[in-house]
Amino acid sequence: MAKQNRKLQVVKIGGNIIENTALLNRTLNNFKNLKSPKILIHGGGKSATRLADKLGVPIKMVNGRRVTDQSNLEIAVMVYAGLINKSIVANLQSLNCNAIGLSGADMNSIEAKKRAAHVVDFGFVGDVENINTSSIELLLENNVIPVFCAISHDKNGQLLNTNADTIAAEIAASLSEKYQVELNYIFEFKGVLSSIEDKKSVIPTINLKKYKQLVQQKVIKDGMLPKIDNCFSALIKGVEKVKIGDVSILENSANLFTTLILE
Amino acid sequence: MAKQNRKLQVVKIGGNIIENTALLNRTLNNFKNLKSPKILIHGGGKSATRLADKLGVPIKMVNGRRVTDQSNLEIAVMVYAGLINKSIVANLQSLNCNAIGLSGADMNSIEAKKRAAHVVDFGFVGDVENINTSSIELLLENNVIPVFCAISHDKNGQLLNTNADTIAAEIAASLSEKYQVELNYIFEFKGVLSSIEDKKSVIPTINLKKYKQLVQQKVIKDGMLPKIDNCFSALIKGVEKVKIGDVSILENSANLFTTLILE
Repeated sequence: MAKQNRKLQVVKIGGNIIENTALLNRTLNNFKNLKSPKILIHGGGKSATRLADKLGVPIKMVNGRRVTDQSNLEIAVMVYAGLINKSIVANLQSLNCNAIGLSGADMNSIEAKKRAAHVVDFGFVGDVENINTSSIELLLENNVIPVFCAISHDKNGQLLNTNADTIAAEIAASLSEKYQVELNYIFEFKGVLSSIEDKKSVIPTINLKKYKQLVQQKVIKDGMLPKIDNCFSALIKGVEKVKIGDVSILENSANLFTTLILE
Repeated sequence: MAKQNRKLQVVKIGGNIIENTALLNRTLNNFKNLKSPKILIHGGGKSATRLADKLGVPIKMVNGRRVTDQSNLEIAVMVYAGLINKSIVANLQSLNCNAIGLSGADMNSIEAKKRAAHVVDFGFVGDVENINTSSIELLLENNVIPVFCAISHDKNGQLLNTNADTIAAEIAASLSEKYQVELNYIFEFKGVLSSIEDKKSVIPTINLKKYKQLVQQKVIKDGMLPKIDNCFSALIKGVEKVKIGDVSILENSANLFTTLILE
């Protein structure tokens, strides 16, 4: 089938949504109502940190970034691929949305390479090397809805921790060879804010030039930087539309959200 | 395709195999080498109990059987559907076996009903009501190898804990409408033993009549009872062959194992 006739919506939901049962239910209900073939990618929220705390497993940070040692990898796999993933799948199934939960090891869907320990050893962290689009396509074409957690593997038996925003961007980009892809990042804000104090200060459109300005002005910083990098990376690789906003963007009722465009 | 032309091997591996890395690797390697379409079902071993211990979550037993409260259900989902399932899938993928890990919620593959609290409330324990054979068949016919953990769901958003032996028997039985099914239970012994002290005292064949005798003589008791019940239930529902033994039964080199037959 020609790409022109096949739409695909890739939706990534952040940790703050997963932490809030009412918001998660609303999001999953909206997701279920989306018409086109669709894929859900979820982060982990604070559940992994809470479990590590309860188990007395220390969380090691280097340069403000988390290091995934063996114990923390096991916690991530248990929480992301186990508890959160299966709870979301069961919730979607109760809404008659035929979901299937996947890590990157399942059907070899996300192959990654353990990040080399150059300056910092981040441990069992994987950088995506290949998305197995045929596997994902098989599910989509049979009306099965993939729900991905942020766990990948190296095809040599090692599970790896990978950023959920990156997984969403890589999946969206890879499938843009076969589908017209829209990528949505859903989080707690209505979009990218020009002032963090003003929740309505949503920047409606960001192109590459404006992005550079906003970074220089330190309007976009910290955790928002890799998120937006992922968005532009997806656009450059062929994703047609990228939107960032809160759950209302899945309801077509949103009047505030951020659209990212190349130019 | 006619059932006569389609063979299927359903293999259940017990907790003692999962606990032993060398034995697990050998088992998965043997499983990968099986020629026919195949399905793996795994138990959980002592990992869930260890995690409960570490978290200080008490394990409640009634009449020698475990009660699954909310905390223990979350632990089961994390350990069975998360850590163990994804580790096995990643291991199989490293052997070029295109595995996919599934709970009963995924593709609605195993629908169960929460056991009614008549005399004892076992908590979030599910009795299998329906196996979605079309979902499993879609995977098998596309050379994807399902790896099931012992978590089911009620289709109303509730995950449930279900015995892995039962899941294996139910999956084997349901698919026997479409395939010639052989069901293998792999555990630490060479078969059903006539004396637990003599590891070579394997009973080669057990039919229903002999089973009743062995139960009366208390040769078969405790945990072996529901296991054998599951085997006969599978045979009655159309499974062609049931074997119980150690990992060597997957190597075609086993000279000791137990075959179960109806008469």
